[in-house]
Order: sequence, then C-alpha cells, then structure tokens
Amino acid sequence: MKKKMKKINAAILIIGNEILSGRTQDKNIQFISNWLNSKCGISVKEVRIIQDIEKIIIENIKFLSRKFNYVFTTGGIGPTHDDITAQSISKAFGVKYEYHKEAYSILEKYYGKIKFNDGRKKMAKMPKSSKLIYNPSSAAPGFITKNVLSLPGVPSILNSMIENCKIYLTKGATVHSKTVNLFTVESNISKKLGLIQKKYKKFVEIGSYPFFRLGKIGVAVVMRSTSINKLKAVNTDLLKLVKLKKIKILKL
Amino acid sequence: MKKKMKKINAAILIIGNEILSGRTQDKNIQFISNWLNSKCGISVKEVRIIQDIEKIIIENIKFLSRKFNYVFTTGGIGPTHDDITAQSISKAFGVKYEYHKEAYSILEKYYGKIKFNDGRKKMAKMPKSSKLIYNPSSAAPGFITKNVLSLPGVPSILNSMIENCKIYLTKGATVHSKTVNLFTVESNISKKLGLIQKKYKKFVEIGSYPFFRLGKIGVAVVMRSTSINKLKAVNTDLLKLVKLKKIKILKL
Repeated sequence: MKKKMKKINAAILIIGNEILSGRTQDKNIQFISNWLNSKCGISVKEVRIIQDIEKIIIENIKFLSRKFNYVFTTGGIGPTHDDITAQSISKAFGVKYEYHKEAYSILEKYYGKIKFNDGRKKMAKMPKSSKLIYNPSSAAPGFITKNVLSLPGVPSILNSMIENCKIYLTKGATVHSKTVNLFTVESNISKKLGLIQKKYKKFVEIGSYPFFRLGKIGVAVVMRSTSINKLKAVNTDLLKLVKLKKIKILKL
Repeated sequence: MKKKMKKINAAILIIGNEILSGRTQDKNIQFISNWLNSKCGISVKEVRIIQDIEKIIIENIKFLSRKFNYVFTTGGIGPTHDDITAQSISKAFGVKYEYHKEAYSILEKYYGKIKFNDGRKKMAKMPKSSKLIYNPSSAAPGFITKNVLSLPGVPSILNSMIENCKIYLTKGATVHSKTVNLFTVESNISKKLGLIQKKYKKFVEIGSYPFFRLGKIGVAVVMRSTSINKLKAVNTDLLKLVKLKKIKILKL
C-alpha cells in the first residue's frame, strides 16, 4: 500500500529594499513557488517582503520558522554593508556568526588568495552549523540554518542553485491542478461555483480568475488538490454547470 | 518657510492563492509602490502575500493597519466564493458588512436591473462607513475602511483606479533617489561604501545591486533620501571612491 504523504508547507521571505521601493520587479517568488510545488510537493503559504533592517529580519525569521516547515530567504548574502541576512539569522537563532570552513575554501579557490578581500571573505561567514547550498554560477554559496534556506537575490544565480536545495527538503504530497478557461463572467457562475466549493471544501481548493484574451473576457477556474480522484469529481461537477449555462470553453 | 513634511509609510497585502501557488506573476506590488513613491511621497515598508482564508486576512489587516499609515489590499473583491476581502475587513474592524448605497446604484446602473444578479450585488457589499474608490474600467468600486484601501487583483483594473486613491492619502515627504551604475564588482567597493553608509546613516539609504549588461557585470549603487542636499553629498563621496578605484561608470 502506498504510504500517504504529509502536506508540507513553506514561506518565502524576500529581504530587499529594492523590491519594496518598486525599483526592481521581483521574479523569485513565482520561481521558487513553482519549483517547490512541482518538484517537491511543497506549498508556499505566505510571502513577506521586508526591509534590510536587522531587527525586522530577526522578528520575521523567528515567526516564520516556527510557523512553517521551511522558510526560503532571498537577498542580502552578498559582500556589501546592506547584506545582513546571515548575521541576522545567527541572532534570530542565538548561534554564532562565523566563517564556514568549506565556504571559505570554495571562495578562496574561486577568487585566488590575492583577490580574496574582506568583502569576499564576508560571504563565507554564516550562522554556526549551517550547511551549504552550492552555487554553480558565482561560487558564493547559500546556506541552510535549521529550517531556513538562504539564497541570493539575483534571479539567474538563485535559479542555478535551486536544485541544490533538494537534499535538505522532505518531499510532500504533490498538489495537482486543473484549469478550465470559460468564456463567461465570474458573476454568471459565482453562485453555483460556490456550492461546488462547499461540497468539496476539505479536499479541493477552487479559485476563479478573470482573463482577457482575443478581445473577449473570460474566467479561469483553477482546481487544486492532492487527490486526483477528488479533482476529477470537481471537474465533472464544473462541466455540468458549464453545459447547463451553455458556456463556451477556451481550449488551449 | 517651507513646512517640513512628515514621513508616511504603507504596507501592501496581496490576497490571493494564485500568486502564492506561482500560477500568476504579481505585477501590483511594483506598480503600487512606484506610484506611492513618485506621486504621494509614501514609502512601502512591508509586503505580505497571503491565502484567501478569513482568519488569516483578519490577523494581517489588524496587524498591518496598526503598524503602518496605510494598508493597500489587492484581490478578493470580485463576485465569487473566494472573494472574501470585504467581509474579512469588516470582521477585523468589528463593523457591519452591508450594502453600500452608492456602490449598489453604480453597479445596478452598469449591469441593468435584470442582469444585476446576486454575484454582482455582492460587489456592492462592504464594511459599514467605507468610502468608495471609483473604478473607471469595470464599475465595481474599491473602498477604503479606516486606513485600509482595497483594490482588485487584476492589474489593468487596479492601474485604472489608482489615481482615485489620492483623495484619501496624506502626502508625505518625497523620497529622491540617485543611481550610479559602476563597472565593478560589489566586493571591490563594499568596504568603502559601508563607511559612506555609516557616515550618512540617518539621512540616506544606500543599496548596492549587481547587474549584468552588455556581457559585463556591474553594480548599481542606489541612494535614497528625502533630502536632496544629503543625496548630493553622498554622491560626491561615492564619485571620489569611484575615481580612487579607477572604476568606469555606465552612462545610460
């Protein structure tokens, strides 16, 4: 008999004034979330974007690491004064902030002894007992401290490292999803769709999202569940509603 | 004498499973933040993305509305079962959830009496004493309840409504910013840049962000301050550092 897998969740903590100020469009939330969903069966349940301020980072690390199975942080692990993620996590967990031997030797090898200056050395400092998340594109590793995984903010570097997080994660039950795109308006189906959601409340999450395509408006109905059978049952109910209301489906 | 303007801040609360699941790329955070900065002198200090769950929405509305001058919510004000922002805000503030007369008549006029069904009527229900944020593109208004402004999640509709938020906001001191793009690596300037940040700690926020352009890597140094004079002083110090290190500037 197949063992039933547990639901495993995560939060994402984006540390970076540049996202808050609107200067930079975040691309990491969607990437991490999709990767966790599709590759690890882990659902992101909350995201926070916060300022580069030690006290604020500490508060959020404490709160989120207690509440969720995993916390992914992005940003603040480079060599400059505004990179304070590692020391803040050390303080949040009350552990020493010190050189990680392997990180130090990776960076020393990458830059060469002469060019291995203080800024670069800083990237080898992290909370005591952290384990490394290897970085194939620019050497400076990320790290995991308890259940908190720290990655850089630059999307291309983060993307290159994400697979190296896998060894630290317990796989959860995969969430399957099914989307049906309807040429109708939300208010035409809202009542009946609400009844379907009520019927399957415990097993399936139904979302409805307006879209604009080919000059027409429509609604994407997204069903998500860890059970494929329950997903099929909801889909059958939805298609009955679609037939009853004579709604056209957009086939992609 | 010019009156010194106060610093005014805001939080953004994105209510929507579709952003958390990675299905949809958020575009509202950057848009709202840039608009608040440039048009209202208001800085976004925190963003949260949360699930469409009443209890969670209530907790976050309570917390953020106490901590920040304004809270902007996006999503969850449509006609379907997963649109629960309005009733959740009512509960957070302990006020009645009821029809807003003007919203009701706007929607009735827009849809016509016959097509004004229950789903559409729902969009006229909001926390008692809320004031409307008019919607020029699809009629259904947003609303402000105490210091919480609720907008829809669809970016094109949100964008069309944003100017109508202005009458409810107190203008703050404009944050000016100056960016200098350097063809160097962060670790080459990190030490001296840290010293400049220390010197102007109270007045100017300095961020440094790696970039990749024309096959070269570089660092964007972003300085932000409400004082143009302090910004100029930091810039002068930065240019001295650039000269000393013989770094090339990327002129855009």
